[in-house]
Amino acid sequence: MADCIAAISTPMASGGVSMIRISGADALKVAAKVFIPKYPVRDIEKMDGYTAAYGDITADGTKLDDGVLLIFRAPHSYTGENTAEITCHGGIHVTKRVLQAVLSAGAVMAQAGEFTKQALVNGKLSLTEAEGVIDLINAGNDQLLSCARAQTDGALYRRIEALCEEIIAITSEIAVWIDYPDESEDEDEIAKADWLRSTLAVKENIDSLIATYDCGEILRNGIATAIVGKPNAGKSTLMNRLTGVQKSIVTDIEGTTRDIVEDTVQLGDIMLKLADCAGIRETEDTVENIGVQRMIERIGTAQLILAVFDGSRELSDDDKRLIELLHGKTVIPIINKSDLEARADTAFIENELGKAVIISAKTGGGADELEQAIKQRCGISNLDAGAGFLANERQRQCALSAQAAVDRAYNALHGGMTADVAGLELEAALSSLYELSGKTASEEVIDRIFSRFCVGK
Amino acid sequence: MADCIAAISTPMASGGVSMIRISGADALKVAAKVFIPKYPVRDIEKMDGYTAAYGDITADGTKLDDGVLLIFRAPHSYTGENTAEITCHGGIHVTKRVLQAVLSAGAVMAQAGEFTKQALVNGKLSLTEAEGVIDLINAGNDQLLSCARAQTDGALYRRIEALCEEIIAITSEIAVWIDYPDESEDEDEIAKADWLRSTLAVKENIDSLIATYDCGEILRNGIATAIVGKPNAGKSTLMNRLTGVQKSIVTDIEGTTRDIVEDTVQLGDIMLKLADCAGIRETEDTVENIGVQRMIERIGTAQLILAVFDGSRELSDDDKRLIELLHGKTVIPIINKSDLEARADTAFIENELGKAVIISAKTGGGADELEQAIKQRCGISNLDAGAGFLANERQRQCALSAQAAVDRAYNALHGGMTADVAGLELEAALSSLYELSGKTASEEVIDRIFSRFCVGK
Repeated sequence: MADCIAAISTPMASGGVSMIRISGADALKVAAKVFIPKYPVRDIEKMDGYTAAYGDITADGTKLDDGVLLIFRAPHSYTGENTAEITCHGGIHVTKRVLQAVLSAGAVMAQAGEFTKQALVNGKLSLTEAEGVIDLINAGNDQLLSCARAQTDGALYRRIEALCEEIIAITSEIAVWIDYPDESEDEDEIAKADWLRSTLAVKENIDSLIATYDCGEILRNGIATAIVGKPNAGKSTLMNRLTGVQKSIVTDIEGTTRDIVEDTVQLGDIMLKLADCAGIRETEDTVENIGVQRMIERIGTAQLILAVFDGSRELSDDDKRLIELLHGKTVIPIINKSDLEARADTAFIENELGKAVIISAKTGGGADELEQAIKQRCGISNLDAGAGFLANERQRQCALSAQAAVDRAYNALHGGMTADVAGLELEAALSSLYELSGKTASEEVIDRIFSRFCVGK
Repeated sequence: MADCIAAISTPMASGGVSMIRISGADALKVAAKVFIPKYPVRDIEKMDGYTAAYGDITADGTKLDDGVLLIFRAPHSYTGENTAEITCHGGIHVTKRVLQAVLSAGAVMAQAGEFTKQALVNGKLSLTEAEGVIDLINAGNDQLLSCARAQTDGALYRRIEALCEEIIAITSEIAVWIDYPDESEDEDEIAKADWLRSTLAVKENIDSLIATYDCGEILRNGIATAIVGKPNAGKSTLMNRLTGVQKSIVTDIEGTTRDIVEDTVQLGDIMLKLADCAGIRETEDTVENIGVQRMIERIGTAQLILAVFDGSRELSDDDKRLIELLHGKTVIPIINKSDLEARADTAFIENELGKAVIISAKTGGGADELEQAIKQRCGISNLDAGAGFLANERQRQCALSAQAAVDRAYNALHGGMTADVAGLELEAALSSLYELSGKTASEEVIDRIFSRFCVGK
């Protein structure tokens, strides 16, 4: 066995071209066994990094395909190791044949995520950056993409690093104090007050870090949204309008259309999973009937309710009954039909449900304001992906442990315990943050992370 | 619009990496608008062919991803034009985003097969070679792969060229004769006899070329095969044995398992589509019943029948009745249970059905002989892919036209007509062969061929 791993790195389907990646000390040696370069070079093992060659891909002397070989030399590669990438025709059988030839030449089949794991081992990226890679591949919209991008660029890693430095600054002062206690009690108090302040600052930073998780969740999974209101309020027009806003990527490529959940619309960067509110229509005639029950259930499960009112008419009894049902929920009141003369009592609505957005579903007026309002109500407008945010449950658990430890440290200092107790808790917080960033993550944690990867990444 | 086309060339699915190909005079200029190189070069437009760079992929100044840019310069590229290949992370959204950025930078979306069409236009490959590219991508087994490989390597193209040269040799002699008829009648006769011989040789070459088509069909679509025989003859053991011979490619990659038609086995390079012969079992007890009817139907539709006899027992009346049913069919008699003492009358079977293959389905003995016999009976053993063969109906139609014209030329010469008639027919044959190789193929034919391609190839 040669010292290198190999896998098909492009998606396993039929296409124009596929790529087989070989990484490890012997990558070029193995590549040389299957690839016979024709142009512009002849000796693979002497090829510079970042250069390519055209040639034949062979197995046991038989030509399988022709293709391109691209060479990277350690440490200037994705994995940080020597890497050879063979691009061949994108048929499934021919691609597997080329992989088979590479494995026969001595390469070991790569496990899921093993290239990225090598990159981690070789210090090419941190654990949170590695987690970003899989998020980037799975990113289904622009916002998720830019969040994942921020992860792979190390935004969270740097945020954690900064937190750790803040904590270390306190723990090292405490350590000095333990060895050389201050002589006067006054100085002691000043020091403690200082630590308390710093610990509070750390605590606030961890709190705001943890708060980023929920925003991420909303971005990833969308917001369960119910559009409620009387039929003639413009509910359907609003839905069509929202759907029309959707900036879908159109190409001629087969399979580009992602599976679309019924009634899912993309409003700017936010995905709204619109609940089917057909039942509400029944309320108009038989207000006390089962339709209201359905609406109440829907309102109960929705994360966000868009309550649409017809701005061109005075509020009806139905409207007022609806308003009552919405108390205590996350509601954005929408006064529709801004293109007509305003007759609805906006002040009353805002008094009951909060700041309203005035739109014209018909003309599209107010769409930006609505997007802004949704972001604000869901807390997304506060998310600056570039500042680093928690991207998954593992990271959140580490952050929660750190938060709890910092809380205990704060309480210890605040409650007048000796500083060494706080010091120990802060060390515990540090350890949780190290696990988050991967500095001390166990093999098991790392394995679990890479099990989310596909083979070939 | 910049003078270049672009498309996602890797399969449209989620994977480790994807590649966007840009080809045309302005390919590097467009690449430079979206790709910001970091290492080892800084100026894309000055990059040499066959060199790569690592960097950021951007859209409107926002980083979408990081990746690798690989440059080819005309004419040393797949298309024969300047080509830039951007490799990014293999997420569907991020890949489409990168393509979008490239299109926004001025590239025109490539049509299905347009890169290969450019290669054709730029003389990088012939029409039959281009057809081989799509066959190569679709190749589902080794034999199809090596056939497609032979196509893309120009085996058919060379075979057609050789045929054309043979024809041109005759037509040019005839042309000379028309201008300067031989002075003596004797010389005239000698020349005519010579043309007749040469035309016969051309005819035979075209005949054998056309014969290659059926082999290709068998390789592509498999042979409808019925295994018949009494249940205790070892039919099921043979089926299991055949299935066991199947050399399937095993990898850990999700989606590697191809859809398997029930009862399809790969015997060496030949795919056998085994018909369900369960009905035959009923014949044992009630010979005259519906089971026999089913078997007769099955025997009628099968392209190949494997008739299994129990070599360890004397032939039964059922065996003899089966033999009668098989007269006039493509049958390979199989004497099974060679591991036991031979009692069956092999000479009788061979006399009735032709050369038998003696096997032991239990131990696997005789498997190679069986494969060989199947190849011989189906005419596949004569197919030398490297010598060029007809790969599709279009090619066959062109070859058939050429064959008909050559036949007419031969008959004209043979029937004593003046040589100019034969000369015109040979010109017609030449024109059909030129259409086959693509020298004179119409835009419509070319468009039809490339409609079989995927976008990105």
